[in-house]
Amino acid sequence: MNVIDVIRAKRDGGELTDPQIDWVIRAYTGGAVADEQMSALAMAILLNGMTRREIGRWTEAMIATGERMDFSALDRPTTDKHSTGGVGDKITLPLAPLVASCGAAVPQLSGRGLGHTGGTLDKLESIPGWRASLTNDQMLAVLREAGAVVCAAGDGLAPADRKLYALRDVTGTVESIPLIASSIMSKKIAEGTGALVLDVKVGSGAFMKDREQARRLAETMVALGTDHGVKTVALLTAMDTPLGLTAGNALEVREAVEVLAGGGPADVVELTLALAREMLAAAGIDGVDPAEKLADGSAMDVWNRMIRAQGGDPAAELPTAGERHVVVAPVTGTLTRLDALAVGVAAWRLGAGRTRKEDPVQAGAGVELHAKPGDPVLAGTPLLTLHTDTPERFETALDDLRGSYAISPDGSSGHGEDFAARSLILERVSA
Amino acid sequence: MNVIDVIRAKRDGGELTDPQIDWVIRAYTGGAVADEQMSALAMAILLNGMTRREIGRWTEAMIATGERMDFSALDRPTTDKHSTGGVGDKITLPLAPLVASCGAAVPQLSGRGLGHTGGTLDKLESIPGWRASLTNDQMLAVLREAGAVVCAAGDGLAPADRKLYALRDVTGTVESIPLIASSIMSKKIAEGTGALVLDVKVGSGAFMKDREQARRLAETMVALGTDHGVKTVALLTAMDTPLGLTAGNALEVREAVEVLAGGGPADVVELTLALAREMLAAAGIDGVDPAEKLADGSAMDVWNRMIRAQGGDPAAELPTAGERHVVVAPVTGTLTRLDALAVGVAAWRLGAGRTRKEDPVQAGAGVELHAKPGDPVLAGTPLLTLHTDTPERFETALDDLRGSYAISPDGSSGHGEDFAARSLILERVSA
Repeated sequence: MNVIDVIRAKRDGGELTDPQIDWVIRAYTGGAVADEQMSALAMAILLNGMTRREIGRWTEAMIATGERMDFSALDRPTTDKHSTGGVGDKITLPLAPLVASCGAAVPQLSGRGLGHTGGTLDKLESIPGWRASLTNDQMLAVLREAGAVVCAAGDGLAPADRKLYALRDVTGTVESIPLIASSIMSKKIAEGTGALVLDVKVGSGAFMKDREQARRLAETMVALGTDHGVKTVALLTAMDTPLGLTAGNALEVREAVEVLAGGGPADVVELTLALAREMLAAAGIDGVDPAEKLADGSAMDVWNRMIRAQGGDPAAELPTAGERHVVVAPVTGTLTRLDALAVGVAAWRLGAGRTRKEDPVQAGAGVELHAKPGDPVLAGTPLLTLHTDTPERFETALDDLRGSYAISPDGSSGHGEDFAARSLILERVSA
Repeated sequence: MNVIDVIRAKRDGGELTDPQIDWVIRAYTGGAVADEQMSALAMAILLNGMTRREIGRWTEAMIATGERMDFSALDRPTTDKHSTGGVGDKITLPLAPLVASCGAAVPQLSGRGLGHTGGTLDKLESIPGWRASLTNDQMLAVLREAGAVVCAAGDGLAPADRKLYALRDVTGTVESIPLIASSIMSKKIAEGTGALVLDVKVGSGAFMKDREQARRLAETMVALGTDHGVKTVALLTAMDTPLGLTAGNALEVREAVEVLAGGGPADVVELTLALAREMLAAAGIDGVDPAEKLADGSAMDVWNRMIRAQGGDPAAELPTAGERHVVVAPVTGTLTRLDALAVGVAAWRLGAGRTRKEDPVQAGAGVELHAKPGDPVLAGTPLLTLHTDTPERFETALDDLRGSYAISPDGSSGHGEDFAARSLILERVSA
């Protein structure tokens, strides 16, 4: 097998054969195919695409470079959720314990944040004592004890994907639906979940700005999961404005706990319940209403057990940032726009996110929203509060937020939009 | 400037700006842009193309990474030729002294062979004592003394191109007209020739199999040369069957000397004269008939001076291979086809070419033709003679030649082709 033949085949618009795919993934992981060869192939894939068969085989080949997990010893069905990432997306935090409280096992392997979308592990690490890294045995023990576990994916799952993702990140080859889909699904299939619900974000704060693209990604991932025996469903959800009223690590944990306590912002509750219902349906559990489990405290009980099982103290005070800066509404009217990307970038600059993998994050940093699009605002009252331990960053964060919101003095959006009627959930994609 | 932005711009079908091109070439040459980033960009260029402005700027940026030569101190106009490479293409050998004998200066920077097309330097190195490597001062001295010089391009010319070519070679990104054209032309423009004639080969033994592609390459290079003040013309010439009757180093030198002595195969003479006339016209020299300079021995005088000036002995016996194998015609009839690629590959395997840059070549190895398409052949008489010092290679060479020729017993080609009427020169491309 010759790597130049494989690159040429894809470059010239052909389909790669199963042996070509198996070989190139294995040879790249082992170092026989060089980075500069794989990046040329990745660009050819980005520009010329892959068929469903090719994507499936590519995914399998990446899985085959590592270990596969097995939760079949558990006495409940497993179900998992993956979000493509958005601003203020703390949904995993209330969702995993909620779904566990309804009778499923939720093995949630998560990542850290890079760029303007926060990482679930960074958020949970703001809880004093909580540990993200577990061995496979520890993970299984937490699952048995609490019904849900949120932890870091070990190095053993799809190592080819880890290497390829790092390469794509520096070679302008991230934005390829076949490569994104196979990257996400290789880890989820290797993780061994029985059911999977994908939350594919669309909008300014999402990776996919365009609904058509997001739908294609969702369809590709649903097909991949289905072809590999994972009951997979996707929701396309809006990400034009932040989810909830917070973007930042401890800020978001606080909001998640409010939801688990039966309160919290309406959009976070709506999406948490919608995803919970999909996860339960995919796992074959019916007759349980997740809204009741939020109301009666069952979900909060699982949360407390889960946090404790990973060394955290759910009753501990969460860290807060040392400095705050309040942005006030310049006029009275209706908030018609508050851009997710701008808020995400501002929170990131304030210290909630990282630029390089090895950077630390600030637990208390972030942006707090005092109004959402559709809400009335009063001139001179707080619109946003910025939190950071490094006040010299306020200026760049304020720069990022310039032009990020609009207030219509006459109470209309100027575009005839009816915010109450807008749904967060745009579309459902199933096999 | 960020390399990912540059890659994305080209990936998404945009035009690169002048500062982007200047920066990426400089940063790649200096090591700040990594191989895996440049190969992704090269693949995006291959698939999405470049405009005439981009190709021009890319070429200039590569030239700017190295030195430029200057022949303006010579008292004659400079004119050069570049061939995209073919089987049995020894034309530079008689052509450079011939054009010099007509009054031009010919600074011919050449390369070594890689793969099935031979390299001009490899051929000349079969002459005892001849040296390919000259300093710039030595090159100028040979030019003054003999009027022509054929030597290796120094490391100082367009080092960006050297690095990029090596990368393209291993990443499946060779076959891009903008990248091929800028690679060739960066060296020719940096060399400082006033006029340039391009011999763009088309056919089985050429890099460009397709006439449309070859024409686009020729047009791109003619535009590049013209835009940079080099009077540039291209001929598209046929490369379906080898040029002349030999493919191999010393074998081809012997044939070139026959042409300089007023003899030699008709096709080699035809192409040598056609290219000589173009080179002279481009250099503004008229009223001289190169055919006379072959006939009266003037071209041979220049050859002898040129070879001697580079340490060679033009009167020395040329090396011959230790072993020969004769392939005889299986039937009587007309030879209707003799495939250039097969002969080139066979000569290469016999030892005339190299697989890796550092491999040695055999001076005497190669393939000798006893007939060309259109010639009558007699059953049992020699059709080809294979030469090598390593007779264990006869078998693979014979394998390469299987099916490479066709003889029509009834004297017609079976396709109504009239070989005598076929011209070697397919098309002329000028500014």
